Amino acid sequence: MTARLAQLSAHLSPTNTLPSGDIGLIGLAVMGQNLILNAADHGFTVVAYNRTVAKVDEFLANEAKGKSIIGARSIEELVANLKRPRRIILLVKAGKPVDAFIEQLLPHLEKGDIIIDGGNSHFPDSNRRYEELNDKGILFVGSGVSGGEEGARNGPSLMPGGHKDAWPHIKDIFQSIAAKSDGEPCCDWVGDAGSGHYVKMVHNGIEYGDMQLICEAYDLLKRVGKFTDKEIGDVFTQWNKGVLDSFLIEITRDILYFNDPTDGTPLLEKILDSAGQKGTGKWTAINALDLGMPVTLIGEAVFSRCLSALKDERVRASTVLEGPTVSGESPITDRKQFVDDLEQALYASKIISYAQGFMLINEAAKEYGWKLNNPAIALMWRGGCIIRSVFLGEITAAYKENPDLENLLFHPFFKNAITKAQSGWRSSIAKAVQYGVPVPAFTTALSFYDGYRSAMLPANLLQAQRDYFGAHTFKVLPGKENDFLKGDWIHVNWTGKGGNVSASTYDA
Amino acid sequence: MTARLAQLSAHLSPTNTLPSGDIGLIGLAVMGQNLILNAADHGFTVVAYNRTVAKVDEFLANEAKGKSIIGARSIEELVANLKRPRRIILLVKAGKPVDAFIEQLLPHLEKGDIIIDGGNSHFPDSNRRYEELNDKGILFVGSGVSGGEEGARNGPSLMPGGHKDAWPHIKDIFQSIAAKSDGEPCCDWVGDAGSGHYVKMVHNGIEYGDMQLICEAYDLLKRVGKFTDKEIGDVFTQWNKGVLDSFLIEITRDILYFNDPTDGTPLLEKILDSAGQKGTGKWTAINALDLGMPVTLIGEAVFSRCLSALKDERVRASTVLEGPTVSGESPITDRKQFVDDLEQALYASKIISYAQGFMLINEAAKEYGWKLNNPAIALMWRGGCIIRSVFLGEITAAYKENPDLENLLFHPFFKNAITKAQSGWRSSIAKAVQYGVPVPAFTTALSFYDGYRSAMLPANLLQAQRDYFGAHTFKVLPGKENDFLKGDWIHVNWTGKGGNVSASTYDA
Repeated sequence: MTARLAQLSAHLSPTNTLPSGDIGLIGLAVMGQNLILNAADHGFTVVAYNRTVAKVDEFLANEAKGKSIIGARSIEELVANLKRPRRIILLVKAGKPVDAFIEQLLPHLEKGDIIIDGGNSHFPDSNRRYEELNDKGILFVGSGVSGGEEGARNGPSLMPGGHKDAWPHIKDIFQSIAAKSDGEPCCDWVGDAGSGHYVKMVHNGIEYGDMQLICEAYDLLKRVGKFTDKEIGDVFTQWNKGVLDSFLIEITRDILYFNDPTDGTPLLEKILDSAGQKGTGKWTAINALDLGMPVTLIGEAVFSRCLSALKDERVRASTVLEGPTVSGESPITDRKQFVDDLEQALYASKIISYAQGFMLINEAAKEYGWKLNNPAIALMWRGGCIIRSVFLGEITAAYKENPDLENLLFHPFFKNAITKAQSGWRSSIAKAVQYGVPVPAFTTALSFYDGYRSAMLPANLLQAQRDYFGAHTFKVLPGKENDFLKGDWIHVNWTGKGGNVSASTYDA
Repeated sequence: MTARLAQLSAHLSPTNTLPSGDIGLIGLAVMGQNLILNAADHGFTVVAYNRTVAKVDEFLANEAKGKSIIGARSIEELVANLKRPRRIILLVKAGKPVDAFIEQLLPHLEKGDIIIDGGNSHFPDSNRRYEELNDKGILFVGSGVSGGEEGARNGPSLMPGGHKDAWPHIKDIFQSIAAKSDGEPCCDWVGDAGSGHYVKMVHNGIEYGDMQLICEAYDLLKRVGKFTDKEIGDVFTQWNKGVLDSFLIEITRDILYFNDPTDGTPLLEKILDSAGQKGTGKWTAINALDLGMPVTLIGEAVFSRCLSALKDERVRASTVLEGPTVSGESPITDRKQFVDDLEQALYASKIISYAQGFMLINEAAKEYGWKLNNPAIALMWRGGCIIRSVFLGEITAAYKENPDLENLLFHPFFKNAITKAQSGWRSSIAKAVQYGVPVPAFTTALSFYDGYRSAMLPANLLQAQRDYFGAHTFKVLPGKENDFLKGDWIHVNWTGKGGNVSASTYDA
């Protein structure tokens, strides 16, 4: 059927000349338009299509004018203008629109053609689409695209995964338009099926975490340090020259310096403090729970957005609930020390967040049977994307040195960095706790660190409780077996009253 | 078909006398056996069945001997021995076994018969089973059952929801066997479809949280206070007489006093500190993320179990990663103050956890269209179940006083309790942070409290960042609109370089 429809499609093609389009792109929102302009700048001919065709005309008449960009007013026209194998990127809203466009495209494609979903699709959907299209001979690629509108225009981070036969056909385009870091493109093949979107999902989760950490630093500088936005901007300017040097620190600086032109006061302080969280950050936290990996910082970052969204309830609560508040002058006497401590708190927490993120990725690789390349992932995040930073250069280096590194924290660079950061980290948290400023991400990071370096955690008590009330049984510590504590899983009659039945088939 | 099969079933019945069974129960693990014995003690005739029939014989020959308990060696025999409408409780492993038994039961049942799933089923499964059985005229009830083996035997907390027509037929049995609190049964009708299992799920999530909080208190007493297990047991004995008076505090005391008979040393210290988390706690955290409710304490409790499970990695990390540790004598000089502060930390954190739990339940009621009864839910948890406590009496009272209470923290009792608890709470956390003991649940609770009482959170910066890199737009604070900041959702060109396209259809 595919062949018959391909004939039909060729028949519908407006001319008999060979098609000139290197790649097609569906979806002319900000990301799509900018990716097209980027590809055109790199010498590729791009065929642009949008469901609302007026958007195609508008784009051609404005941003796309004079560039190697062809407008398509129908799916047929899009396909007819593409070289074989056709390479078509979808940049549409995740979910049903992706399936709908794939459905529309299929009758016009041939075996070996490539559909690339560049949206923020959930990786299980990409796993499914990979399988479904594989059955039809179409090569599916799910590619993470990060960098926002700026990145899409000037060089995004691209994280493609899916059918490996597609890679040779898209490698040149992808690596050309991707960001470069120290001359290397921030794009490499991630792995099978939905792994590209998986890695993008974790990237976004980490992005949630980084943003939350910056928010906590800003909040402490503002509410405890009583810094003005301009002064906080100066702090971020300084931090952007040190270990925190990164895109998000840089834009935070710009934001803090941005004044409302109508009155010259900081625009930031007029923005509603209520954030959404329905996307990839949530997916990362849910996946972490599913895989049993303690990715606590992203979890807290997502929950912080949830709490921010309860604006009206918080405003009411603020008039009812008591607690410390710094009103009037700041209690901070040594401002430089306060700022330096905060820098270390942010840095240490960030190290924890990335360590947790890679723990999750490594667990996912085991769980889903993907062979993933940690140094390549770190390099893909090194430039182009929202979380790009000098710091990711250090992570790339660590994984290049030892691709099988058990945990980022075990690498001397990060181990030493966190050792050095500790006093500032603990001191910043102590101040937040004392003065009543919420720092859920700073504290969960520290709890993780102190828990991770604890050979013994209090979960022994938890296991005893579970055995006490539910006969759930427990294991003993190595070397502690004896005549009373024998066997693999042990149940103790803690009260002398319970029965001898263990909870083998029922989990209370 | 049902009628025909019912005739067949009647035909298979051993005698022509009327059946005497009030209720049937499938699944003779610890919970099942104890529930049967409990029902028999209350004058009900129970028909017991188990897939492995040997377990039926063993039960009849031992625990069930001389009681109003009939053994069934097949599904037919089980059904034949039950009065109409048949009431059958499944206490089998959640998941496929529940569907399998329902499938086996169906040919033997008549319209109006009642299937009760008393296992730890996930509420979406109960929603589905409710619908599927409703189509067949069978009344499905999904009932939370909590209390462990002790509770099942002497009075569990029961949380039934599902087809409301079933309630009059099971109310008497359920309320008879349930725990009593101040003379009231800890069992009431929860609501439609899967709401019974939903409320049980949140109960279990809260149980995870309570257990984690107790673990953190124990850990601080042990690692910072250098208390012996006996001394910690004494602390829990004392706490069990105050605001923390509860089942979990009580069993913790027993556990701490329990010595290994082979050498007389505390058994607890020989138990492996590695806990599982594949159940209802995880579901609660995932549901909280799905509904966008900041149920942070349960989230951290689940992640703490995940971290505990990485025992080998932690042991390795403990030899590599640096940080404060109390070796030798305790730095605590005022032990009484230390213990009192910890009691307040635990109490305040617990208040937060329950406030979060009810926030989730109220959001679920909105989301799933259930009408739920908060005072009844609190009362069901007041006795019989794992989280039973004096504290739940206060919650019951608060919701009885005002069933539409927006948040538990707004009730004077809890508002005042948390105000009073604050200095001990903050001081305990400060010590944990200083001495390197992980307290993820204490700290996330405090962060939530300080965030919830913040009229202004730093999410304004987060919204500015999202608009900067992804043109995501933002809203302005009420009263801050002006000529520059107009419209519902505003996009600012922060750099002067970006385009004018907002991210309407693509979420980067």
